[in-house]
Amino acid sequence: MSGRGDELDDQFIFPTIILNLGNDYNPYTGVFTCRVPGLYFFSVSLTKRRVNSRSIDLVDAYIKKNGMYGIILASTKSDPYDKAEYDYGSYMIGTSCTVHLRRGETIIVTGYHSSFFDGDKCSFTGFLITADIL
Amino acid sequence: MSGRGDELDDQFIFPTIILNLGNDYNPYTGVFTCRVPGLYFFSVSLTKRRVNSRSIDLVDAYIKKNGMYGIILASTKSDPYDKAEYDYGSYMIGTSCTVHLRRGETIIVTGYHSSFFDGDKCSFTGFLITADIL
Amino acid sequence: MSGRGDELDDQFIFPTIILNLGNDYNPYTGVFTCRVPGLYFFSVSLTKRRVNSRSIDLVDAYIKKNGMYGIILASTKSDPYDKAEYDYGSYMIGTSCTVHLRRGETIIVTGYHSSFFDGDKCSFTGFLITADIL
Repeated sequence: MSGRGDELDDQFIFPTIILNLGNDYNPYTGVFTCRVPGLYFFSVSLTKRRVNSRSIDLVDAYIKKNGMYGIILASTKSDPYDKAEYDYGSYMIGTSCTVHLRRGETIIVTGYHSSFFDGDKCSFTGFLITADIL
Repeated sequence: MSGRGDELDDQFIFPTIILNLGNDYNPYTGVFTCRVPGLYFFSVSLTKRRVNSRSIDLVDAYIKKNGMYGIILASTKSDPYDKAEYDYGSYMIGTSCTVHLRRGETIIVTGYHSSFFDGDKCSFTGFLITADIL
Repeated sequence: MSGRGDELDDQFIFPTIILNLGNDYNPYTGVFTCRVPGLYFFSVSLTKRRVNSRSIDLVDAYIKKNGMYGIILASTKSDPYDKAEYDYGSYMIGTSCTVHLRRGETIIVTGYHSSFFDGDKCSFTGFLITADIL
């Protein structure tokens, strides 16, 4: 995962690709665009950042269909509490969803990504369960 | 997810339905009843509640086949420790399982649900991987 | 899950089998060996141990293809911080991946397993999504 800014509800990008059959996931924009209509499964795992300079009040992320203002398929939220001023601890949040996609529909992961670690502590995966019978 | 009481090992209900192909999941009872025999995958994500009035000693949930006293397919447990009296912090637990179901067999999620947040901080999803060849 | 030692980056073994179609998972060695070539999905959930005798600085685990020094498909890491000396708290980490396997290729879960609970607080599951057309 790579951050592009600190805006709330920004779009996550997972640039390290293990497998990208059909190239439906764009590692530069973070957008999965459906080519084969059907039933899909997606799963995201994120690790809350350790910070020693500020407090993180809420870590949250969303799997969304059809863009920033589209349908929230799954959300994952956690509300750390540190009696100290800073959020030294780190832990994981994650969620999964099953969704039907038509050709051209998109999936993104959004959230306040400066709350999370970059790199191999975060992952996003998914696959086609069953293609529609056309 | 919606709570119906505070009993230990109660059954969870996820009333907000994103997708329910075949209507095998009953959002009023929380019971998934198998219609098409085959291999299924299920995944649950839950968020521990922040509480300021009491201590939560164990957060746990189970994916169970064939009712409250049926087989535990997967469990997810965590044991928070707060040196303070109360459990202000929040974090997630989750687990997944692959299971074969025959027609009429059921899947439920159980646990002490007053330990968890309601609503969109919790999710349960699943799908048919491969139908049995009949 | 069962521990076999305290070595760093050791291999996990999940001896309690719920379902093992085709017996591709060896519950004695912890190795999944692909018999049917195709696209697979794997998911692991682990619970950090509560300890009252030492501090745990990093909990991490990896899903690896083709052995200890093979490709890391997915990793899950967390970095607890306890102002006290000891790590009383417990929480979960987990991750998932989608991977293509050829006949004879293997999947293992590795990590520093003395950081995690044994038994039913940890799970590993997976399945064949689509077999290759041969």
